[in-house]
Amino acid sequence: MHIVSVIHLLGFLLMFLAASMLIPVPFSLYYGDNDYPALLTSAALTFAFGFAIFKLTRFRKDLRAKEGFAVVTFGWIIFSIFGSLPFIFAGYIPSFTDAFFETMSGFTTTGATILTDIESLPRGLLFWRSLTHWIGGMGIIVLSLAILPFLGVGGMQLYKAEVPGPTADKLTPRITETAKILWGTYVLLTATETLLLMLGGMSLFDALTHTFGTMATGGFSPRNASVGAYNSAYIDYVIIFFMVLAGANFSLHYRFLRGDFKAYWRNVEFRYFLSIIAIATALIGLDTFFNQYDNMAKALQDTLFQVVSVQTTTGYGTADYEQWSFNSQYILLVLMFIGGCAGSTGGGMKVIRIHLLIKYVFSEITRQIHPHAVVPVRLRNTPVPRDVVANVLGFFVLSILIYVIGVFALTALGLDLLTSFGAVAATLWNIGPGLGTVGPTENYAHIPLLGKWLLSFYMMMGRLEVFTVIILFSPSYWRK
Amino acid sequence: MHIVSVIHLLGFLLMFLAASMLIPVPFSLYYGDNDYPALLTSAALTFAFGFAIFKLTRFRKDLRAKEGFAVVTFGWIIFSIFGSLPFIFAGYIPSFTDAFFETMSGFTTTGATILTDIESLPRGLLFWRSLTHWIGGMGIIVLSLAILPFLGVGGMQLYKAEVPGPTADKLTPRITETAKILWGTYVLLTATETLLLMLGGMSLFDALTHTFGTMATGGFSPRNASVGAYNSAYIDYVIIFFMVLAGANFSLHYRFLRGDFKAYWRNVEFRYFLSIIAIATALIGLDTFFNQYDNMAKALQDTLFQVVSVQTTTGYGTADYEQWSFNSQYILLVLMFIGGCAGSTGGGMKVIRIHLLIKYVFSEITRQIHPHAVVPVRLRNTPVPRDVVANVLGFFVLSILIYVIGVFALTALGLDLLTSFGAVAATLWNIGPGLGTVGPTENYAHIPLLGKWLLSFYMMMGRLEVFTVIILFSPSYWRK
Repeated sequence: MHIVSVIHLLGFLLMFLAASMLIPVPFSLYYGDNDYPALLTSAALTFAFGFAIFKLTRFRKDLRAKEGFAVVTFGWIIFSIFGSLPFIFAGYIPSFTDAFFETMSGFTTTGATILTDIESLPRGLLFWRSLTHWIGGMGIIVLSLAILPFLGVGGMQLYKAEVPGPTADKLTPRITETAKILWGTYVLLTATETLLLMLGGMSLFDALTHTFGTMATGGFSPRNASVGAYNSAYIDYVIIFFMVLAGANFSLHYRFLRGDFKAYWRNVEFRYFLSIIAIATALIGLDTFFNQYDNMAKALQDTLFQVVSVQTTTGYGTADYEQWSFNSQYILLVLMFIGGCAGSTGGGMKVIRIHLLIKYVFSEITRQIHPHAVVPVRLRNTPVPRDVVANVLGFFVLSILIYVIGVFALTALGLDLLTSFGAVAATLWNIGPGLGTVGPTENYAHIPLLGKWLLSFYMMMGRLEVFTVIILFSPSYWRK
Repeated sequence: MHIVSVIHLLGFLLMFLAASMLIPVPFSLYYGDNDYPALLTSAALTFAFGFAIFKLTRFRKDLRAKEGFAVVTFGWIIFSIFGSLPFIFAGYIPSFTDAFFETMSGFTTTGATILTDIESLPRGLLFWRSLTHWIGGMGIIVLSLAILPFLGVGGMQLYKAEVPGPTADKLTPRITETAKILWGTYVLLTATETLLLMLGGMSLFDALTHTFGTMATGGFSPRNASVGAYNSAYIDYVIIFFMVLAGANFSLHYRFLRGDFKAYWRNVEFRYFLSIIAIATALIGLDTFFNQYDNMAKALQDTLFQVVSVQTTTGYGTADYEQWSFNSQYILLVLMFIGGCAGSTGGGMKVIRIHLLIKYVFSEITRQIHPHAVVPVRLRNTPVPRDVVANVLGFFVLSILIYVIGVFALTALGLDLLTSFGAVAATLWNIGPGLGTVGPTENYAHIPLLGKWLLSFYMMMGRLEVFTVIILFSPSYWRK
């Protein structure tokens, strides 16, 4: 472990974070709010600290996978520590635990909140809160498409199997180059959604903050009633469209923008992703139409919004789905676990992993019937390498073990079963709203102190594909 | 598929079932109950049918794995159909759906009941109800120790890995020989427990029926209040002791009885099984002692009984654990999923499978850190063959998929989430009592008709290690 190189990189990242803290300042000034001093102080402090550790350390060129894991995990932690300063300094979230939880929820694009009255916060802080989503989403795209495949974890390595042969279909191999391309795509999509939302009557502030929540599949809204506050079919459908894009693999957007118009259709994961949305919308739509709504168009609009919001793990709300039938609620719960596509900002297990797990089960059934046959798992007729399958299975088992332990911890703190099941799922899969007392119309304010720290840790584990974080706890990681 | 050989074997098994229907008759006569005609009629009908198909078909010597799967699955179905006749003919469970559910629950040693007032049934039927447990348990031991390893499924193949080298440590290889040895052990343990319970003041009827429920880890009791009805520390501890034995691998009992007194201790799965019981009892015991009981001895007695009853998936009750803390309830829930040892009559995932899954996760973590290292999964320092690991992983993923589908079906029938989660877990893992409206103080009477059939199917899938049943749905199974 070249711990010095890791610290050097973290110093660089902190200076970037400090700069981004200045972005909300104009909004604070425009709305005449009193939170810009807190933002400026936080930026100064973050910059000073980042600059100091950057200057005191030196970068060694041969950064290996080992250091990669550390940079990513400690990066998310240090961002959440410094990112929480504006909330603390401005006095709106005085508890460090709460501020850290809220900021980790932002950077991991989870969207779980400890705020009971969101609209009581000044605009500068609300903008910063949404901006943490956007920055986190940017980090995730680069992480999942450029860094994690290089480290051998994350769902994206499955694409290696799906797209065999030379690099023709691959993204530019060098990380910095790849990052630039992806960020360009991310910025372009962000600008487009912001414009479309403003055309629907939103202010620049509302349009930007909601776009940040959409593109990062985060779900923080500056409104207490979330997107439901606008009560507009146009706004709902714009957000639905961009949530779908945010839940898809960003390399597809890049290919599409480069003129490969069939990129989406050729991608097996994206097709399944759309199919799941369509089937879930049909099942729940029929139920809500017959049992909740008089109006078919409104039933479709609310159902589609909720299905897409949940499956992409965004967490925006326009309807209280706890009023829907148990079957509809259960379908939404299953969608949470499935989540978005690999290489998107969405959380959950990812569509391609679920697809591979199902293929694996079928291959095992065949192997039981023909014990001596070699039955590889195939994606689009190409055998998936054994170690990729092993990794997906390991991810699945590990996630479930971690889930079981998390629920144990929360019940030990006195929380009821439904809340514990819901809170751990909603944080580990970066969804946001859970079940029971952390349901879509409630928040995480009442969770005990230790519980908030545990759930913050779970948000980070979920966001960093579990293995990335867990590896740091292995003694053999720290051995020379 | 030699379907004729399968039918021939099923005919033979039905004649055995018919004979066993005569065993409750003396109890019916002794207690002066009116149910012996129903038992005699059922026995006659079952024998006639079994004899007919036995005589009309012929056995081909070269029975392969394929036919094995069919005999086992159709055997459990046909036993549940004919085994339900006494309940229907006597008029105490007039609905075929209910009678089939109750009988399948008996033969799969699940212990889920549709009866709202158990004590209203005559003694002959109650004895038959408990006897289905005992017969099912006998079937399961032979299945898991002699037939399934031969077919390449079930947890027992893990022992091949754990006990390498020549056959010294293995059971007699031929199935019939193995079956005789195991049944001898099963009968001996049954006789011992019956005797000990009678010494505690139980009648022969009560002692036998509770022993059947214990040895099969079934949980049917002829008393409405289950084992709690006796309110005796002696009886509780006798049943605890035999539940632990029933949840252990039966080949260990055989070895112990043959003079290998260290057999239990050398077995890694048994050690983990006891450790889990000890840890769970300590955690829950402290909680119940401080929050529910004044008396430490009584707190320990009730806690240990409940922990052992749940982990072995027996389902007997002496206390209403829904009154205990959420954390204690959650621990019990986790124990249900873990279940007993491979080669026992217990349900659940099995201790050895969970152990192997955890080992697998650790090996995957090591492989992430050292991507080029070969990291096999080891049990007691011996590498476990790849196909055994693949099978356990396949079992885990398939079980969870089936679980998710089952809950979907129950919520579609209008059941609430907690009941649906609980009912599917309680049947798929052969536990019996679930959560919500199928909790330990309630029953399955109110489940809709289609739900009862689905749950009957789930009991069978769980009991036959899932793959055995699922394989029959594969087109390639039926292909020549």
